[in-house]
Amino acid sequence: MTPLNVAVFGAAGYTGALTARLLQRHPTFELRTVTARSDVGRRLDDLYPHHRVPLVLEELDLDRHAQVDAAVVAYPHGAAAEVVAELVARGVRVVDLSADFRLRDLGTYEEWYRAHPEPALLPRAVYGLPELYREQIRAADIVANPGCYPTATLLALAPLANAGVIGDVVIDAKSGVSGAGRAATDKTHFVTVDENVSAYGVPRHRHTPEIEQELAALGAQVTVTFTAHLLPLDQGELVSCYVTPLNGGPQEDARSIYLEFYDGEPFVEVTDRPPGVRDVRETNICRISVHHDERTGRLIAFGAIDNLWKGAASQAVQNLNLMFGLPEGEGIS
Amino acid sequence: MTPLNVAVFGAAGYTGALTARLLQRHPTFELRTVTARSDVGRRLDDLYPHHRVPLVLEELDLDRHAQVDAAVVAYPHGAAAEVVAELVARGVRVVDLSADFRLRDLGTYEEWYRAHPEPALLPRAVYGLPELYREQIRAADIVANPGCYPTATLLALAPLANAGVIGDVVIDAKSGVSGAGRAATDKTHFVTVDENVSAYGVPRHRHTPEIEQELAALGAQVTVTFTAHLLPLDQGELVSCYVTPLNGGPQEDARSIYLEFYDGEPFVEVTDRPPGVRDVRETNICRISVHHDERTGRLIAFGAIDNLWKGAASQAVQNLNLMFGLPEGEGIS
Amino acid sequence: MTPLNVAVFGAAGYTGALTARLLQRHPTFELRTVTARSDVGRRLDDLYPHHRVPLVLEELDLDRHAQVDAAVVAYPHGAAAEVVAELVARGVRVVDLSADFRLRDLGTYEEWYRAHPEPALLPRAVYGLPELYREQIRAADIVANPGCYPTATLLALAPLANAGVIGDVVIDAKSGVSGAGRAATDKTHFVTVDENVSAYGVPRHRHTPEIEQELAALGAQVTVTFTAHLLPLDQGELVSCYVTPLNGGPQEDARSIYLEFYDGEPFVEVTDRPPGVRDVRETNICRISVHHDERTGRLIAFGAIDNLWKGAASQAVQNLNLMFGLPEGEGIS
Amino acid sequence: MTPLNVAVFGAAGYTGALTARLLQRHPTFELRTVTARSDVGRRLDDLYPHHRVPLVLEELDLDRHAQVDAAVVAYPHGAAAEVVAELVARGVRVVDLSADFRLRDLGTYEEWYRAHPEPALLPRAVYGLPELYREQIRAADIVANPGCYPTATLLALAPLANAGVIGDVVIDAKSGVSGAGRAATDKTHFVTVDENVSAYGVPRHRHTPEIEQELAALGAQVTVTFTAHLLPLDQGELVSCYVTPLNGGPQEDARSIYLEFYDGEPFVEVTDRPPGVRDVRETNICRISVHHDERTGRLIAFGAIDNLWKGAASQAVQNLNLMFGLPEGEGIS
Repeated sequence: MTPLNVAVFGAAGYTGALTARLLQRHPTFELRTVTARSDVGRRLDDLYPHHRVPLVLEELDLDRHAQVDAAVVAYPHGAAAEVVAELVARGVRVVDLSADFRLRDLGTYEEWYRAHPEPALLPRAVYGLPELYREQIRAADIVANPGCYPTATLLALAPLANAGVIGDVVIDAKSGVSGAGRAATDKTHFVTVDENVSAYGVPRHRHTPEIEQELAALGAQVTVTFTAHLLPLDQGELVSCYVTPLNGGPQEDARSIYLEFYDGEPFVEVTDRPPGVRDVRETNICRISVHHDERTGRLIAFGAIDNLWKGAASQAVQNLNLMFGLPEGEGIS
Repeated sequence: MTPLNVAVFGAAGYTGALTARLLQRHPTFELRTVTARSDVGRRLDDLYPHHRVPLVLEELDLDRHAQVDAAVVAYPHGAAAEVVAELVARGVRVVDLSADFRLRDLGTYEEWYRAHPEPALLPRAVYGLPELYREQIRAADIVANPGCYPTATLLALAPLANAGVIGDVVIDAKSGVSGAGRAATDKTHFVTVDENVSAYGVPRHRHTPEIEQELAALGAQVTVTFTAHLLPLDQGELVSCYVTPLNGGPQEDARSIYLEFYDGEPFVEVTDRPPGVRDVRETNICRISVHHDERTGRLIAFGAIDNLWKGAASQAVQNLNLMFGLPEGEGIS
Repeated sequence: MTPLNVAVFGAAGYTGALTARLLQRHPTFELRTVTARSDVGRRLDDLYPHHRVPLVLEELDLDRHAQVDAAVVAYPHGAAAEVVAELVARGVRVVDLSADFRLRDLGTYEEWYRAHPEPALLPRAVYGLPELYREQIRAADIVANPGCYPTATLLALAPLANAGVIGDVVIDAKSGVSGAGRAATDKTHFVTVDENVSAYGVPRHRHTPEIEQELAALGAQVTVTFTAHLLPLDQGELVSCYVTPLNGGPQEDARSIYLEFYDGEPFVEVTDRPPGVRDVRETNICRISVHHDERTGRLIAFGAIDNLWKGAASQAVQNLNLMFGLPEGEGIS
Repeated sequence: MTPLNVAVFGAAGYTGALTARLLQRHPTFELRTVTARSDVGRRLDDLYPHHRVPLVLEELDLDRHAQVDAAVVAYPHGAAAEVVAELVARGVRVVDLSADFRLRDLGTYEEWYRAHPEPALLPRAVYGLPELYREQIRAADIVANPGCYPTATLLALAPLANAGVIGDVVIDAKSGVSGAGRAATDKTHFVTVDENVSAYGVPRHRHTPEIEQELAALGAQVTVTFTAHLLPLDQGELVSCYVTPLNGGPQEDARSIYLEFYDGEPFVEVTDRPPGVRDVRETNICRISVHHDERTGRLIAFGAIDNLWKGAASQAVQNLNLMFGLPEGEGIS
């Protein structure tokens, strides 16, 4: 097969750099370019030795860099939309790691973020959670890669949402520090995080509307309580979802509903015991369990992912594979 | 003042050893004896160098060891009750770190644990959370030191329970590994815990009935959802409590209710921002914040403690201080 | 190519389990059997979910299990030799992860370990450090996989030993906890290791004679000072080697010697700056730097590996690849 | 006793803030002022909640702030000397945490640092390691608090230096991240440090001349090899010292030499086994062991301290206690 040329824009951050690594070793894609807004001129394998990508970070030059079949944009929200628009205009198919194309409703985006630079493109974007939108992703030219928390949460809750039994849900999320990005701040200093745990972004975390949008698409119209916590680990994310069931809850055993819903899914594992994030470290896998609390009637669902992998970079590659008709797990299994 | 003689029974475990350290440096208590069921004959400062208690662990001999004014029993539940009974019979005033005297209802104890060895003593025991039972503790000869999770949870929820606004509550608890005790198992092996987080004891954790009992005593008759998670840190515990309010919630600002409820409490800090467990490490302090989520109407309360200190050993000393009419913070401030 | 059948004996421990994972996904080897002395009957992917090897641990039955082309033995020293002997007698080519065949001199083995169960086999074993013994490994039927500390140390020192400039050397080694194995003990308990660092096995660590044997084979007859330290991390090992040079030290720049010595080596990286173990995590790579201290005349060489990978499992696969004429990096790149 | 007024200049950093905490609870000193160059106007208990110092960080105003009996200066080297000079000129007795007054030889200072702003004051400064300079400290008005590495190293080596048996020494030091200070950089980012270990400052670390100066003062004229490593822990420092002995080494058992040398020292513990940094966490204690390697003839000495306590803040208080005739352990035991 002719190699497919691909570029990663914004490869100096954690998720862009990991995407570059995965694409650089991908059997079909050929990584042509990595750009960055900081660290221009540095080699990526100097900045991230363990990724071993021997390319120099370049300053963005769309005339040259858009000569590719596909691109992954790893810019902050707000900054991403314009680059995505330029790429799409040049015929490049894009996976966008930012929040800019995740919310289908412009008003919701502008309530939680700011004015949208490219609202006309919103209808063309597909929400890039393959387990829910596999067919739409195949045909899309803009795929909005989900946030890490929504990825874990939606996979943990989709079977219940689909079964129509979610009345209310509290989501308590726990993330490793890489989720906070590469910026060196008081909050990411080792001495701040070590031997610590605390909540942040209370009570309004920006991943909330994304979760609500997709639960609603599955049939669950709920206003969710979502709280994120920072933990002393590097990669890994666990969501603990406490569901107050509707209509007396599911008629059958909750675990059976999950096994059936995810039957054949290559990157979802349904387990008996609560999953740990170590079990999915450096993989594209989401590991899920569901439990029934007889005393309260609640259903408790856990979802564990690697926030940099299934929560960002490897899911981006999974989406690219789908968009170009490749085996879904190529380069990420 | 004449020194008060005190013994720690079961000082080879984490909480017993820390209690011994605190009492050994206490200005009024004089630590006479440390006993253990394992490690007899070893010096405590060999087993726990950082505690620097130069006493030898002895095998229990009540005829000799009960010649004290006060005792702390740090045995596992089930094993503790008999020792407590013998001590009380000899006129020793006891703080018990086990679960044996925490539940006032025998049936509830036997449902969650096993047959109770000394049910006749249950009515004599006082629940040792000074912020709720200060006066009763002063007069008690058996004080049941609360579990670590109930300590953090009840302090985080008491103002709302007292205000009559708790309709329902989900408690998501996160604990460091010392909470699992000194036993070396697969679950406490460094390689299992490091870079990991997962829930355990789902969906029935034995601290649940203790929380419900005390919330009910405050006026909140609720069946709680309680889930504990193990985190890669040594000491520290955070509870995140998601409260669905009754009656439209509190009429005034939730934080004001907390400030008023805890006004003058020496070991409770009410903060603006979500507390971190680093802020209370190696202290007897519980740090609390409360937040109102306007979107869902929920109240979110966080409580952070050091599970070995306020969650066990230093709270035991706080109770002893009260029982013997000493300044409440002596030896633990 | 016809698949080559392989078995892992002793797959319940960390290194055996990881070897099984690597072989299970290897393009040429086909993993037929995993045995263990504990946990018989458990699935390996239940014991180690993240390895995802869907095989059941069996009790050793050589009549059945020796029907393979190759085997990796991951038994403790002393127990390994007999199994290796039986396998070799049946025509199976073996990589042994224990210390039993690393020391060529029987007396040295018996001084540091105990009576050797199969001394007659010692001359048939090849020391499995491919960077030093590549050709001999290709022809061997017993390959003694090096210890983790010797792997990092020898790779860090080989260019200087080969250049004839090592007069004396102090080796200060630092290892993650997985190096201590899966046994749950006081020493591997999270609370013991966390926020801690200390030396162990002072002053006689069993990896010392292995290092001296191989330095001597390279021409450096030295009695080394070797001290190991346990660090709060899971995988990773760093050796800091302080060399007092002979004969005024190397004539040319030390780094040039290293670059030349390792030119073309697929799994050695020579860097400018001191390497970190994160840079080699979950890889078969040894990352090395060398520095000249002008004030003292000493040469300082650092070697970083993943103790479970290049220090054990992936190096075993590298050896198997060589033994069977496969590309050296197959299944481990 | 009339309280002694004290100020901490530069209290926004880790060591200054901890010094402020220790002095704020000191029975004799009364902390009047905390100043900072950043974070002016913030309360110290907002910046460092766990220190619980309810004072506002002020901008330095010597006319007001020098109205104290004693001061601790926690400025970076270079910046400290001028403040110290101004304070001394106003009759304030000072402990300086910087390197500015540690080196008695101006040329050595200027070789390793830069031009010295106040060379005339050098002869008035005393090196603040109480175990070596107790009497001189009592009379000094400028005490140069030792660096963290020199503290641990000198305490680990002093008995051998004093015995005249150090021929050569290699010092391999390991430090927690708080040693790198509060600045948020790539190097102190949690994700950089976690699961990592590497050397830094190779081969010239600025603590080297300080170690050599003091070893020489004890009679050991050696050029030392000193290498520091960064470890994934917050507080704690271990030095491993490899001594090639002179004159056949000590005539008596090395451990006896240490026990005798440190007999009666309140803050030094000589142990049988290699010390761990957990054993000295949040204490002013240095824990030391010494071992003889019969194979090589070397002596191996380990020293463990808490880099923020005995390596900086609590040692500063120990020095203040000596300077003002107070019990040496007041406020730090």
